[in-house]
Amino acid sequence: MLSKQQAKFIKSLQFKKYRKKEQTFVVEGAKSVEELLRSDFEVLMILCSEGFLQENIHFNSAGNYQTHVVTETVLQSLGSFQSNHQVLAVAAMKPAMGIEKVTSPFLLALDDIRDPGNLGTIIRIADWYGIHTLLASEETSEFYNPKVLQASMGSFTRVSLVYTSLEDFFRKNNHYKVYGAFPEGESIYNSQIYTPGILLLGNESHGIHSSLEPYIDYKIGIPRFGAAESLNVAVSTGILCDHFRRHNRF
Amino acid sequence: MLSKQQAKFIKSLQFKKYRKKEQTFVVEGAKSVEELLRSDFEVLMILCSEGFLQENIHFNSAGNYQTHVVTETVLQSLGSFQSNHQVLAVAAMKPAMGIEKVTSPFLLALDDIRDPGNLGTIIRIADWYGIHTLLASEETSEFYNPKVLQASMGSFTRVSLVYTSLEDFFRKNNHYKVYGAFPEGESIYNSQIYTPGILLLGNESHGIHSSLEPYIDYKIGIPRFGAAESLNVAVSTGILCDHFRRHNRF
Repeated sequence: MLSKQQAKFIKSLQFKKYRKKEQTFVVEGAKSVEELLRSDFEVLMILCSEGFLQENIHFNSAGNYQTHVVTETVLQSLGSFQSNHQVLAVAAMKPAMGIEKVTSPFLLALDDIRDPGNLGTIIRIADWYGIHTLLASEETSEFYNPKVLQASMGSFTRVSLVYTSLEDFFRKNNHYKVYGAFPEGESIYNSQIYTPGILLLGNESHGIHSSLEPYIDYKIGIPRFGAAESLNVAVSTGILCDHFRRHNRF
Repeated sequence: MLSKQQAKFIKSLQFKKYRKKEQTFVVEGAKSVEELLRSDFEVLMILCSEGFLQENIHFNSAGNYQTHVVTETVLQSLGSFQSNHQVLAVAAMKPAMGIEKVTSPFLLALDDIRDPGNLGTIIRIADWYGIHTLLASEETSEFYNPKVLQASMGSFTRVSLVYTSLEDFFRKNNHYKVYGAFPEGESIYNSQIYTPGILLLGNESHGIHSSLEPYIDYKIGIPRFGAAESLNVAVSTGILCDHFRRHNRF
């Protein structure tokens, strides 16, 4: 049975402060937990409904973790989402990837993406396009935020986010061409993106910090045919990754 | 001064039932209200902070509506968003556009898009790509839902949504080629979209209803290079609209 102390511990992981201190996080919902169990994350505990356990009996024996059957009310009270009726997992964070290990020929760099839904959607896009490493400024939303994990739809298990000073990274890694996304940038229909390359996306409201401008090799943009002032940053990321993949293989 | 009755009326518009009954809706936040005031929607009332009024004094004289200066607390209690510190507008809905008036050479059709954030983001994408008319199944999220309006970032003023039976529309308008988006559809890199055409997007979880399959001329898809099971529907819409616009002018 789940002890009061365990319940309190899980509930505390709704807060970034405790996630950071414990290096532990919570994954909610059947789809995300299934992906978690297939990944190399260390799972520490599973809480699920009786029905979920019956349908997924192998979960119980697959790893070195405790499984507790709990009510929907408990699931919802310990997690962040009212919509979770089936399962919640507690897992250990992976150690942060060292910046020196970043060697992919193509990277995404996120300059201060603040909305967790946008960050999760971008992680899902990266996973779709086979981009495994993302650089993120320190002010970017937290990878283990429940809303990020949920919007990533399980892709958080296959994509690494490296939080770093983008300025430092660009300065020390100038063999990468940096492609900055700007509303008024050169039309992607007339330009290609080459590797080794970094696609740089800016903040939802303020765009790319001016301090990064010296490191940008090409300002690129998505042609507009109507009147909207801008596109959502995750939508832009999708269109730019698609463009990039049309023209490159690696 | 804002009367108690007026406050109660505005608050009631958080609910679809009352919006529908009163044919009236609420727009929140400076950016969206500015777009509303530039549009042909009839504005009925503005509530704003003293600071906002000082900076936008022309608002007060531009239309035939009352302007009330209120506190932030009042703004937040009458609207849906805690983050709104500046302005809220009450406006009249436009009469629903008759289906017989739909004549655009290129349309988006939404089959049961349930998430208001996705719908708003799709409206913003349509506006970016100069697509003015969207067809939506009756089960699609409500156009005037505050979360839809917010995610559209003002684009709701330039894009019309026509709620209808997609099946009926496709049957009666068979001069349109229908392009259905499927995860396993034919790669868009090898296919074009011609006008008059309809790009059909399906529900977030279940995709396109099987009842619509007989009307689909081409199943198209976005090539995948990695492991994610799918892309977010708004991201897919962005990539497909971009693809369409690369190859067509109208």
